[in-house]
Amino acid sequence: VRRSSSSCEGLFAGVLSRGGAAVQVDDEAWLRALLDVEAALARAGARAGLLPADAAAAITAACARTAGFDVVQLGQDAASAGNPVVPLVRAIEAAAGEAGAYVHLGATSQDILDTAMVLVARRAIGPLTDDLEAAMAAAEALARAHRGTVMAARTLLQQAVPTTFGLKAAGWAVLLAGARRRLVEVDRGLPVQLAGAAGTLAGFGGAGSQVVQALADELDLAVPLLPWHTARLPVADLAGALGTAAGALSKVAADVVLMAQTEVAEVAEGAAGRGGSSAMPHKRNPVAAVSVRAAARRAPGLVATLLASMEQEHERAAGAWHAEWETLSDLLRCTGSAAAWLADGLSGLSVDPARMRANLEATASELCSSAVAGALAPALGRAAAHELVASSVGEARRRGEPLVEVLLGQPAVTGVLTRSRLEELLDPLQHVGEADRLVDAALRSLRDQPARRTA
Amino acid sequence: VRRSSSSCEGLFAGVLSRGGAAVQVDDEAWLRALLDVEAALARAGARAGLLPADAAAAITAACARTAGFDVVQLGQDAASAGNPVVPLVRAIEAAAGEAGAYVHLGATSQDILDTAMVLVARRAIGPLTDDLEAAMAAAEALARAHRGTVMAARTLLQQAVPTTFGLKAAGWAVLLAGARRRLVEVDRGLPVQLAGAAGTLAGFGGAGSQVVQALADELDLAVPLLPWHTARLPVADLAGALGTAAGALSKVAADVVLMAQTEVAEVAEGAAGRGGSSAMPHKRNPVAAVSVRAAARRAPGLVATLLASMEQEHERAAGAWHAEWETLSDLLRCTGSAAAWLADGLSGLSVDPARMRANLEATASELCSSAVAGALAPALGRAAAHELVASSVGEARRRGEPLVEVLLGQPAVTGVLTRSRLEELLDPLQHVGEADRLVDAALRSLRDQPARRTA
Amino acid sequence: VRRSSSSCEGLFAGVLSRGGAAVQVDDEAWLRALLDVEAALARAGARAGLLPADAAAAITAACARTAGFDVVQLGQDAASAGNPVVPLVRAIEAAAGEAGAYVHLGATSQDILDTAMVLVARRAIGPLTDDLEAAMAAAEALARAHRGTVMAARTLLQQAVPTTFGLKAAGWAVLLAGARRRLVEVDRGLPVQLAGAAGTLAGFGGAGSQVVQALADELDLAVPLLPWHTARLPVADLAGALGTAAGALSKVAADVVLMAQTEVAEVAEGAAGRGGSSAMPHKRNPVAAVSVRAAARRAPGLVATLLASMEQEHERAAGAWHAEWETLSDLLRCTGSAAAWLADGLSGLSVDPARMRANLEATASELCSSAVAGALAPALGRAAAHELVASSVGEARRRGEPLVEVLLGQPAVTGVLTRSRLEELLDPLQHVGEADRLVDAALRSLRDQPARRTA
Amino acid sequence: VRRSSSSCEGLFAGVLSRGGAAVQVDDEAWLRALLDVEAALARAGARAGLLPADAAAAITAACARTAGFDVVQLGQDAASAGNPVVPLVRAIEAAAGEAGAYVHLGATSQDILDTAMVLVARRAIGPLTDDLEAAMAAAEALARAHRGTVMAARTLLQQAVPTTFGLKAAGWAVLLAGARRRLVEVDRGLPVQLAGAAGTLAGFGGAGSQVVQALADELDLAVPLLPWHTARLPVADLAGALGTAAGALSKVAADVVLMAQTEVAEVAEGAAGRGGSSAMPHKRNPVAAVSVRAAARRAPGLVATLLASMEQEHERAAGAWHAEWETLSDLLRCTGSAAAWLADGLSGLSVDPARMRANLEATASELCSSAVAGALAPALGRAAAHELVASSVGEARRRGEPLVEVLLGQPAVTGVLTRSRLEELLDPLQHVGEADRLVDAALRSLRDQPARRTA
Repeated sequence: VRRSSSSCEGLFAGVLSRGGAAVQVDDEAWLRALLDVEAALARAGARAGLLPADAAAAITAACARTAGFDVVQLGQDAASAGNPVVPLVRAIEAAAGEAGAYVHLGATSQDILDTAMVLVARRAIGPLTDDLEAAMAAAEALARAHRGTVMAARTLLQQAVPTTFGLKAAGWAVLLAGARRRLVEVDRGLPVQLAGAAGTLAGFGGAGSQVVQALADELDLAVPLLPWHTARLPVADLAGALGTAAGALSKVAADVVLMAQTEVAEVAEGAAGRGGSSAMPHKRNPVAAVSVRAAARRAPGLVATLLASMEQEHERAAGAWHAEWETLSDLLRCTGSAAAWLADGLSGLSVDPARMRANLEATASELCSSAVAGALAPALGRAAAHELVASSVGEARRRGEPLVEVLLGQPAVTGVLTRSRLEELLDPLQHVGEADRLVDAALRSLRDQPARRTA
Repeated sequence: VRRSSSSCEGLFAGVLSRGGAAVQVDDEAWLRALLDVEAALARAGARAGLLPADAAAAITAACARTAGFDVVQLGQDAASAGNPVVPLVRAIEAAAGEAGAYVHLGATSQDILDTAMVLVARRAIGPLTDDLEAAMAAAEALARAHRGTVMAARTLLQQAVPTTFGLKAAGWAVLLAGARRRLVEVDRGLPVQLAGAAGTLAGFGGAGSQVVQALADELDLAVPLLPWHTARLPVADLAGALGTAAGALSKVAADVVLMAQTEVAEVAEGAAGRGGSSAMPHKRNPVAAVSVRAAARRAPGLVATLLASMEQEHERAAGAWHAEWETLSDLLRCTGSAAAWLADGLSGLSVDPARMRANLEATASELCSSAVAGALAPALGRAAAHELVASSVGEARRRGEPLVEVLLGQPAVTGVLTRSRLEELLDPLQHVGEADRLVDAALRSLRDQPARRTA
Repeated sequence: VRRSSSSCEGLFAGVLSRGGAAVQVDDEAWLRALLDVEAALARAGARAGLLPADAAAAITAACARTAGFDVVQLGQDAASAGNPVVPLVRAIEAAAGEAGAYVHLGATSQDILDTAMVLVARRAIGPLTDDLEAAMAAAEALARAHRGTVMAARTLLQQAVPTTFGLKAAGWAVLLAGARRRLVEVDRGLPVQLAGAAGTLAGFGGAGSQVVQALADELDLAVPLLPWHTARLPVADLAGALGTAAGALSKVAADVVLMAQTEVAEVAEGAAGRGGSSAMPHKRNPVAAVSVRAAARRAPGLVATLLASMEQEHERAAGAWHAEWETLSDLLRCTGSAAAWLADGLSGLSVDPARMRANLEATASELCSSAVAGALAPALGRAAAHELVASSVGEARRRGEPLVEVLLGQPAVTGVLTRSRLEELLDPLQHVGEADRLVDAALRSLRDQPARRTA
Repeated sequence: VRRSSSSCEGLFAGVLSRGGAAVQVDDEAWLRALLDVEAALARAGARAGLLPADAAAAITAACARTAGFDVVQLGQDAASAGNPVVPLVRAIEAAAGEAGAYVHLGATSQDILDTAMVLVARRAIGPLTDDLEAAMAAAEALARAHRGTVMAARTLLQQAVPTTFGLKAAGWAVLLAGARRRLVEVDRGLPVQLAGAAGTLAGFGGAGSQVVQALADELDLAVPLLPWHTARLPVADLAGALGTAAGALSKVAADVVLMAQTEVAEVAEGAAGRGGSSAMPHKRNPVAAVSVRAAARRAPGLVATLLASMEQEHERAAGAWHAEWETLSDLLRCTGSAAAWLADGLSGLSVDPARMRANLEATASELCSSAVAGALAPALGRAAAHELVASSVGEARRRGEPLVEVLLGQPAVTGVLTRSRLEELLDPLQHVGEADRLVDAALRSLRDQPARRTA
């Protein structure tokens, strides 16, 4: 009995399969889920009186250990039927002895595989949302700690006007919380699949709806209104929520990578001994954030494949269904890896408030010039005020003089503003607007996260 | 004053821009939305005491007519600022006379453009969800009318076991309803964007949150917890819901195209005079279903672009934001066109129940053979029963004899089943399982659709 | 010493990892390639005098057996450096004894990983192009055998005018040959990567270009004009060629699936015992074509990920590079699996010329009606002729009469065409145009295929 | 007679439709191309004797002016046939008077539309490759001018070891040249499409191949081996080459955006008056590079759509064909816009060599520490040398002392290296390796670019 591939422990696993999701989507996990579904189906059938309770117990026992099944052989045998359920059912029948006749009763291969896919998704979403939550909590802690840390806001990667690192981190936390919320919501609605070859429940002798309900109970899944063999809303919902989570994770990681640049140096990833380079002993790379971006970057293409695969023909698709199996597994694994890496990266993030302030000072007076322009606008008109400040900024830069002095040299300015008002306008601390209030609102909202369903 | 491009009336518009969504995403509609936001911002500011009410009224008046603005010129001027809001603000200032100084107060370009994008989305989602609803209603009517119409279920495009066209159409209706439900949900949560250059509300003199609330009231949009300049959950949610709708539409269209094949001929699109060919006078093409598939096929790539664009740097992205504008417009238009075409195609669909029955008859006894295998399984064991029936099917085909006779020639069969039981098992009408109950449940659920928000 | 994941033998491998490419992209293959590059680098360095020849020999010996390296451990250790080369170099150093000091001389991790990726690609492209060639040869044989087999051409899945199965199969062969040609071309240009941390060859003491040339010789790869650490044309070229091949394969498979439909039944996949269903004993599914479509469907999303990953920052990307590793492996594996399945499916394809003819007869006279319209056009005008024939077709269908009789009842027709001319025009055999000539030209062109480079 | 949408002059056109490609893909250009094909078809038919020369001349005259056709009406009428060629043919017939009977002879709609699509592509590729060439030339000029400008190479956005801006710019030029080369190659092979409804040339009375050849001559396109109605290699090749070009453009733009960051400030976009902000008067945004990234970011999704659309059924696809029209247009326009913006951005780029040097100095001694590690490795072993240098770097940073002094305090170092050797090793100018030679080789290679085909 052979074990097979496990994407959670390969050559690239340390970088691209971090966290608890990967192990929930590998072959062992799929086999576990398939066996769980067949066992639950037997018990559900027994509850509906379709098979004896002891047959269901025997089938459940036969399905208990994945080690009893040869994944490599099942994979090879899957080629002739076009899916691994056909050989798996034969193997369970063999293992169940006399109860073998009751295995897979009324079901079609897709019933088992789809329900197993849903279980795999739920079992991966568990650790995935935990990691998202950990990343969110780390961002929340940063927001709390740096509520008063002034830094430059940057638009188009140019310093703009001041903000606080607290608000930036609160933005991360709220973004991650939103992504997590959607995943939890989708997870809660994941439905069982059971309807037989044509989706009519024809193989259950009239007890179909009863068995569907019992199977859903057994597996703690939802009962769908209709079979969804080729109506793939559950897969599309998963795809959308996972792609959204990956995108959210990559946004935060991009910010970290940019702030960790040698020339910016506002943050550094803290894990000791990580981020060394084979050729450059001095480097300290933001390995966590880089790995988040690497894994998350795969998500949009995987989501596109799943959405394009919604066009499924008639009552079972000739290819589009099969295309989902590995794609959804990869999407769960990549998003999970990104979440785990971000939780790690943010938890250990070193923040350098002094450097944030220093970076800001370099252009602080310029950054605040928009406030000056605003203050001049009522008197001079918006356009003229804007132009006057812009030319003063240029002149200050050319002359190497403080902007405040250049402005005070202009009658159009001194006619409107005093030196002390000007200095106030040019002090970055005066220009973070309602950042504090926004941080507070964000922190309040984060207290109330939906609990994830346990699988 | 020039008008510019309108994707709703171009060379390919008849095929790819059908329905009411297209006109809501063209340049005129974007301009309308941008002007609406600037006008609403002025009124919101006035409510917070930041500008005189008559200035707000003057700005609102200046923004009232899109015809007063030269879209082509605005588009050209957008090049130097990197977005069209900068020249538009100048144009509104000029049009507003003395009130010009109060235009765009406290806002940054992205505030206006993002809120306008949300308005554009909502205004397109209106007709789009109406068209989805029409398609759903047409499917529902088919389900009701064909509750008793037996046809072949097809898996991997092979006839499998019998089902009803009613159940198939009910599946379409439920799928479309689910896609519509998600869109309505996302639409309801669409938030206003307003926070100024750094997302701190620094330009509102402390009245920021008040103005945000007032702007949301003016435009009937939600108030976001934090600015979402680079936290693109609303865009991702739209992308996911639209991609899902497109996928749902393409599934139904694929079924129609396949059923309309010359050799299948179970349905035909009914619109008179449509579907002719320049080279083949006799053809009657399923133009509506083809056009659904054409438009829907663009969605996954567009969704992937929007999700990949979630990685937005710092407080304004250097490219990823700008990439959303046309992409989201295209996604709304394509999904809308697909919905409109499907509503049209399904409403006029000619259904041929006799042909459905005839197609099924060709393999009916074979189709029902799984029932025979099931009936033999308790006595013979699943594998042996399966094998016996499979070989009998082969033999019946070779000998050109009815399957029932071949089966009755086998002692292993006659020891278990009588002729009348065999005939019953081989009658397709006996094998549609719980199709009726499922159709009824589906029809009941469809009665209760969430109303769309009116824009 | 543990082995790890092998995508060529997992639960879904039989369906989605067929053929020889899969085993060339698994962890073992990657490790093999990484070791080959380090060994070749040592020999190349020795040729340039940077290390003693016996040190190079010792390193080559240390790299000879993948079994000496613990892939699982390497994968875990990769997390701290962000790539597996760092721990691998340490392991080789340990294995090489005194020669350990010369391992990895002058190189950066990306040099090794990129060159290994190129080797992995080449080694997978070998069997992949063989399988493409086998599929092409099978299509060619069908074209040759069915040069005279009349069938219906279908546009928008409606029967149009007659063609031959020979021409259809020739089209498949030419398409596959074109896809293969592009892959061979890209394969031939695959370059070595070697330039050190900054891409300046600074670590080679002035002998850099010599070592690059020697490394290229050792590995039979091209010498790039400049390092391509963040100039990813080779990856983009691979992506484009593989995506194109996958698309070509899916087109042929889609045709097979459609022709194999129960109601069409013009072809069937021949492999004995394949295509059975767990619930439906009578079915014979086109498993090969379905599996082609399943694997090929993943390609566009994978290609999009690789193209989106071309935006690589400065001299090494912070994520986009890492995203390529698994993505390219998956793309090679999926395309390879599709090629292997199609070779299998086409080789064993059962073709039913009688059924092709019968399907065509059903609408033959209608199909030929465009010829009649053409013959009437000079006399009646194109529009009038088209309209006249279209209305006659409708009337023939309504009255259940042969089209020829309906047409002969119209003076406008009999004034122009005799009955015998009309009958000729309505005979499908007369209407396959230059199909034979096209098939001959295609067959001639297929004789001259570019040889693939052996890896 | 109405004109319709023109993506080259809309609200977003300044940002996303720059350059000469956009105007070549708008409705007017498509109409022009469709008319050119019908006219060329008439002349080709006349050369084969299928129609009188003066009829061909009359048709050519009728097709001469796009202004004679109502695009909006054609677009609306396209809905009933599923493509705009059907109503266009009627319009040309009307315009051609007596010659009308000879319009569209032997062709099917797809022949005309596909050939027009190829013309549209070629006409857009003209300015697109010119813009690529201009961007390449600008990069080349930077490489020439900055051959000796030392700067930091950056890996994972961390300063690594020194390089030159000349080498960086040469890398850009070579990358752009490679992307351009592939586009030119694909452009040269673009084939005509002409084969009639079933792809058999049945409508040409035996003269089909002659007409195909003549049409190819008329339009200066290649003759395909077989019709490619559903064998979409030409579209896939275009998609791959355009997606690759977009990726190459975005890589260069990303580097520019990063170097233009406030904290890095090594380059600035030069165009006067561009890059202002509505809210921040002091900003100078890299609008060109941002706009490159915005447009290029759409490419991967568009390429994925085109590749996914290769799965085209039988002899004409039911949707996948129609999905190409707008998608390819958008891909040409976006890639063209990115090329035009980059040409603009690089041409006017201000480079600050002093800032490059200053940025490097900040970490210069650390950057060079890998050289020290290398020099120590033979004596100490790689690992020990690496570790010693890493700890010295840390100590120097903590103590605020020059690295050279810390190293000279270690006996393990002084036993191997003298102070002067150490200082040499730590001088960045000594560590740009073979940068000069690589730049020279790149500049030489750039002299020899393939000429683009003129359309």
